[in-house]
Amino acid sequence: MGALFVSVITSADNDKLKTIRKLQRKSWREKLGLFAAEGEDLVEAAATAAREPEFILRAGEDVEPELLDAVSTLGSGSRVIGVYAESWSDPAGDLLVYLHGVEDPGNVGTLIRSAHALADATVVLGPGTADPYSPKAVRASMGSIFARPPARAALSDIPARPLLLDTRAERDLREVSVSGPVVLCFGSERGDVPDVGESARIPVTNDSLNVAMAATVALYEVALRMAADA
Amino acid sequence: MGALFVSVITSADNDKLKTIRKLQRKSWREKLGLFAAEGEDLVEAAATAAREPEFILRAGEDVEPELLDAVSTLGSGSRVIGVYAESWSDPAGDLLVYLHGVEDPGNVGTLIRSAHALADATVVLGPGTADPYSPKAVRASMGSIFARPPARAALSDIPARPLLLDTRAERDLREVSVSGPVVLCFGSERGDVPDVGESARIPVTNDSLNVAMAATVALYEVALRMAADA
Repeated sequence: MGALFVSVITSADNDKLKTIRKLQRKSWREKLGLFAAEGEDLVEAAATAAREPEFILRAGEDVEPELLDAVSTLGSGSRVIGVYAESWSDPAGDLLVYLHGVEDPGNVGTLIRSAHALADATVVLGPGTADPYSPKAVRASMGSIFARPPARAALSDIPARPLLLDTRAERDLREVSVSGPVVLCFGSERGDVPDVGESARIPVTNDSLNVAMAATVALYEVALRMAADA
Repeated sequence: MGALFVSVITSADNDKLKTIRKLQRKSWREKLGLFAAEGEDLVEAAATAAREPEFILRAGEDVEPELLDAVSTLGSGSRVIGVYAESWSDPAGDLLVYLHGVEDPGNVGTLIRSAHALADATVVLGPGTADPYSPKAVRASMGSIFARPPARAALSDIPARPLLLDTRAERDLREVSVSGPVVLCFGSERGDVPDVGESARIPVTNDSLNVAMAATVALYEVALRMAADA
């Protein structure tokens, strides 16, 4: 039985723990090309998506629980943390989402989840958009960061017709043709939008949808119509 | 010039600051019937909704900035905090949302925002649902907590036909008639749902929508069909 415990990490100086702590910072994620996923749900989602971890640490099994809690980004601590290689998709498909200046990592993660759930669509990250591999974005994406990794590209490099969703647009999204590859474009909540010729608005009672909700509705609307046309 | 500064709060023992700190806790919010809203956007939303504050503290004007930061729930501190009476709506209208066991305050706040934006619908809070007046829920609701305060009621006390949105339901939401007052019911992400006879699912590619996104899509779908039928 004793052999099981030989490899339990008992020092905060351990290299794996130090790596997890470093990955809280964007500069280290970029340098190492890695990110951390905390919690059983995310580690399971990675396994479901057949993504091999660099390593996984489980409290009480691989590492003393207090040491794992000390490198956790969750207030409650973590029972398991996995470290994975960042993955990037090509900006391809019949329906994509392009984000410009979306600074909130929770919104970026939620959008990745929403695009995956509603349309199996890839989210393309443009300038000024939060890192999708930050702890907060990864958590908000749930498993979708593994199942449908985001892409990085300029809008002009996406082989699809851009359509800007904008509350100030005159045309209702339901009046816009959505045949052929379409990339739904969203600007920041502060009003910073990409330069797109065509725009449409989502029919809402009040102009207070956040970008994640607006994208959810737009993806629902467009994905259903594309499916009906197909 | 000096007169301007006579009333500036310079002590953390000040009663208003102590009240704001107390209101971080649910027990104090319930006892006092008050809540705090942080930041210019929320304080403006309250004014737009003609909601009178109990008091407002502005950094540098009413209070020393460090003292206001010390009672802020935001990592970055606050420039302004307003304290308001909690407000509760009646569970009435043609379209309502009922939440059962939705424990995450961010989801509850987002739902209030979404219901307001998409359908001007009241959110009714059932058992096990997070306090909509917690700092996190208020922030997520944006101005909608002021424009469209939530209600508290048992499902059986809502004068509308209940329809449970459930990923396991056989019928697609688009196949369900939505005439007459309808209350869209959502359970917890852990699968705890209210006891409702009729259920429907949202057509999604994957079952990973969170409750706030599922409700956003359902409200969009139902509100548009109700408007088309009217």
